[in-house]
Amino acid sequence: MRAPAPARDDVAQAACVVLERLRAKAPRVHCITNAVAQNFTANVLLALGCVPSMTLSVEEIGDFVARANAMLVNLGTFDAERRQATELAVEAAAQDRVPWVLDPVFVDRAPSRAEFARELGARGPSVVRLNHAEFGTLSGAAPSRDTVIAFAGRNKLVVALSGEADLVSDGARTVTVANGHPLMAKVTAMGCAASAITAACLAVEADPFRAAVAGLLIIGVAGEVAAETAKGPGSFAVAIIDALHNLDPAMLKARAKVS
Amino acid sequence: MRAPAPARDDVAQAACVVLERLRAKAPRVHCITNAVAQNFTANVLLALGCVPSMTLSVEEIGDFVARANAMLVNLGTFDAERRQATELAVEAAAQDRVPWVLDPVFVDRAPSRAEFARELGARGPSVVRLNHAEFGTLSGAAPSRDTVIAFAGRNKLVVALSGEADLVSDGARTVTVANGHPLMAKVTAMGCAASAITAACLAVEADPFRAAVAGLLIIGVAGEVAAETAKGPGSFAVAIIDALHNLDPAMLKARAKVS
Amino acid sequence: MRAPAPARDDVAQAACVVLERLRAKAPRVHCITNAVAQNFTANVLLALGCVPSMTLSVEEIGDFVARANAMLVNLGTFDAERRQATELAVEAAAQDRVPWVLDPVFVDRAPSRAEFARELGARGPSVVRLNHAEFGTLSGAAPSRDTVIAFAGRNKLVVALSGEADLVSDGARTVTVANGHPLMAKVTAMGCAASAITAACLAVEADPFRAAVAGLLIIGVAGEVAAETAKGPGSFAVAIIDALHNLDPAMLKARAKVS
Repeated sequence: MRAPAPARDDVAQAACVVLERLRAKAPRVHCITNAVAQNFTANVLLALGCVPSMTLSVEEIGDFVARANAMLVNLGTFDAERRQATELAVEAAAQDRVPWVLDPVFVDRAPSRAEFARELGARGPSVVRLNHAEFGTLSGAAPSRDTVIAFAGRNKLVVALSGEADLVSDGARTVTVANGHPLMAKVTAMGCAASAITAACLAVEADPFRAAVAGLLIIGVAGEVAAETAKGPGSFAVAIIDALHNLDPAMLKARAKVS
Repeated sequence: MRAPAPARDDVAQAACVVLERLRAKAPRVHCITNAVAQNFTANVLLALGCVPSMTLSVEEIGDFVARANAMLVNLGTFDAERRQATELAVEAAAQDRVPWVLDPVFVDRAPSRAEFARELGARGPSVVRLNHAEFGTLSGAAPSRDTVIAFAGRNKLVVALSGEADLVSDGARTVTVANGHPLMAKVTAMGCAASAITAACLAVEADPFRAAVAGLLIIGVAGEVAAETAKGPGSFAVAIIDALHNLDPAMLKARAKVS
Repeated sequence: MRAPAPARDDVAQAACVVLERLRAKAPRVHCITNAVAQNFTANVLLALGCVPSMTLSVEEIGDFVARANAMLVNLGTFDAERRQATELAVEAAAQDRVPWVLDPVFVDRAPSRAEFARELGARGPSVVRLNHAEFGTLSGAAPSRDTVIAFAGRNKLVVALSGEADLVSDGARTVTVANGHPLMAKVTAMGCAASAITAACLAVEADPFRAAVAGLLIIGVAGEVAAETAKGPGSFAVAIIDALHNLDPAMLKARAKVS
């Protein structure tokens, strides 16, 4: 028998605790991410009080991951260097029990990337964050509440599926997060940033389901705040960094749309 | 006998049609571009309603290009990875008839880059967008209306030469685009973004001359709009993204300075 | 016997001269810098009137460095490509007498990076700019006024140590620069940008001590100006580019906190 959906207030409260811990603990988050997203991702993490690092060098990445509190593996612009770095990083993460998020960007565009993502999915990510097209390619099933729950349960990980409303499931627990704003789709690396924030949340919250919900809530609420003053995607991208910096638990709780 | 310069209103009207198609069709634009420009270029394309991709991976790039509607090859930070990616991408573009723009950044700085650019110029780009120093190196001639027309005609491509006023020619038709703002020269990757927009225009306009004029008009007018509120190059770079997002055919037509 | 600390007004005045020369001479600054910092660094240099270049390609980098007026070697995201590029670039810099700054980012995180930084430190950088953790790893000593002076003197270079107040020493002369703002630590690549500015200053000021002080003053004062309007680290990163563009010698002199 499946557990009922967690009560809205409980999940929002848990996200507030995660946000407070990010500010207090300043976790180190090592990001293997695409060339387009690196700068924005670093600034998003810094705005939340985290310490990002981004090296891909095979000589260094093991040391960086071992000293990190969480990791992101994002498959955008996935070249030989990133492939090799990921191999070493995933191994180091397993050895040092560093939790990590997989973001299989654009796996619907190239079969070789999809295959690599499937292999990675079996190597212990705590969370997979992705969009509908990517979920379809990765799971081989049309995205729906049922297929997401089934995929999460079967692979023993949390799925965070972004869309008009986001869906988060670990197979047993499932919630919908309805925060966010359409301008988020008009700024490059916004999904990558959401995955990086989710990784940061894993660093301070042992339950990956709660961490994933917190990650999506944090960026979704910041997006809503940013949209209130933005004049387009350029000023929106700037304002969301400010909003993440200024976000506090009271704002997060008041605006959370979880069901 | 050469055709006369297209009437100002015709060219501006054609650019308006291109802009509307960008919004309606959301073309995919694959960009091989330099590390400095990737994020800004992606945001510029998204602001216009396009879908950018940027991978350089040899395993993937053929698939990405084949699924794209247009391509950019920008020679900034041109390393072994980009060189190899370009080889494969240009081949895939030829096979799948994906039109592309060549942006020979800084060919005046390194002979090896200039040589590669000359080879690429012979492999079928629809448009070459470049500045005066780059044109001088690539063509071996001092930049002028006559040398630009001759180079375009001889190489059967459109030359889009940026400068105080931009010059666009396919050898037969030649126009000057006088939009833009001096702050555009103070933001990195602005020329790269102009080339990416031109590539996007090629995706929705079969005539590369019209596509190139549309591309330069779109970024030039957006630059003028952005300059009205900018306090320096930082806020200008943000405002031009907003302006591209908010640009509509009426604004484009009203502000176009084509002769 | 050591020279006394230069008088506050002299150092500030020297920085004003450097700033004026940057505007007038538009020096070329070649940057080997990390993938996260490339775009921001280029925009910072452009805002000051400099001409940045960033290629890492082994075929090209020698030509670019030979045509540059100064160079930055920043060890962030230090992969095989950057390592190889640095070898060639440092050689070209020595041959063509191009002064350069070493920024040993995150040497405290990976022993292989620290070792490479130590080797580079012996190959003739004019300035090493770094934070407390990095100084500790590089010098093997806890950072203090005395250890910084000793390290600078022993290695015949200028140390620019960032912190709540920055410390600059060439072993003989030592000053403290107390400009800046806490938001500078919340934007990625701000330290990298400070190093790039310092490199630019080396291009127009033969005394590396004065160049380093000028570099830190310029970015510190711009940071203070930016903080006056910023609503968080996102708008701060934009505003500091504007501030660098608008900075003039009078503002620099009036706000300089040198002791």
